Amino acid sequence: MDRPKISIYIATSIDGYIARKDGGLDWLDRVGGFDEDYGFQKLLNSIDALIIGRKTYEVAATVPDPYPGKRVLVLSNSLNSVRKDMELFRGDLTQLASQLHSEGIKHIWIDGGVTISQFLDLQMVDFMTLSVIPVILGSGIPLFNPIGKEHACRLISSQSYPSGLVQLNYEMQRTEVFLNDK
Amino acid sequence: MDRPKISIYIATSIDGYIARKDGGLDWLDRVGGFDEDYGFQKLLNSIDALIIGRKTYEVAATVPDPYPGKRVLVLSNSLNSVRKDMELFRGDLTQLASQLHSEGIKHIWIDGGVTISQFLDLQMVDFMTLSVIPVILGSGIPLFNPIGKEHACRLISSQSYPSGLVQLNYEMQRTEVFLNDK
Repeated sequence: MDRPKISIYIATSIDGYIARKDGGLDWLDRVGGFDEDYGFQKLLNSIDALIIGRKTYEVAATVPDPYPGKRVLVLSNSLNSVRKDMELFRGDLTQLASQLHSEGIKHIWIDGGVTISQFLDLQMVDFMTLSVIPVILGSGIPLFNPIGKEHACRLISSQSYPSGLVQLNYEMQRTEVFLNDK
Repeated sequence: MDRPKISIYIATSIDGYIARKDGGLDWLDRVGGFDEDYGFQKLLNSIDALIIGRKTYEVAATVPDPYPGKRVLVLSNSLNSVRKDMELFRGDLTQLASQLHSEGIKHIWIDGGVTISQFLDLQMVDFMTLSVIPVILGSGIPLFNPIGKEHACRLISSQSYPSGLVQLNYEMQRTEVFLNDK
């Protein structure tokens, strides 16, 4: 089924957390202030739409216009509405991707640990950029939730920055490729 | 208290597992056969002793002489004995490190997820080398168990290999340094 390209772009602690237990992101300050955006603007320029989870939405909702000019879909089973510049979605993610494709969306950034795991589980992720922050948080909200499937990944590139951040760029391999590869 | 330098050197999947749930390490084969040891021999040459957990011991115990010429201490509360070329230890790890120092041990490699977390929790890790294998396993034995403490790390270097493995080298920062740093 045709669908847009789907990318993960997220910062993680060395021990695999994307936020403190309370959602706190203060530890990202460690790599701020280096006159470096770690490819964020380039990512924004390359996408048409975002799909975010409820927790990410609650952080984004505190900002006036967090993703200027982008369509934003919020996945939630508990919310009844979202702010008017975003769209609430509840349902089949494969159908959502297909629908967005038919509406002309070419490239989607997905954000949030649960959302990422859902798309990985559906094997609907094409690219993954992880920015590893030089800290062990000890606890928090995990990037990866246990999923039943194994995914081979192809390293496209890695880059370290003066801040100590290391960015890992992977292309996700299709299962067919992976099986042929064995 | 004086103690030997203590280093972590371990391979991890992108999602932070060091073995399958059954201890399986077959996924490491992805990065084998590239005529590359990823610094393993250099690590071995630099250490005098290893401290390993019970699960790591059970894997190592299947090999005739897994760590030639090295003292090996096995941490376990459940085992009553270990093979005769290794030593069983049960007790205070700070005292163990101090004792090994007094016996002339300069550099220890610690291995195993639980063992690593115990030493991190005690702030007794000096260096950490993580080899990130280009695969998402989906489940397994985690590298990092939740610990109560945050650890700042200083990136020493990162290196990617043709196999897709990316190796991250960190120096662990003392808490004092971290607090002064704020």
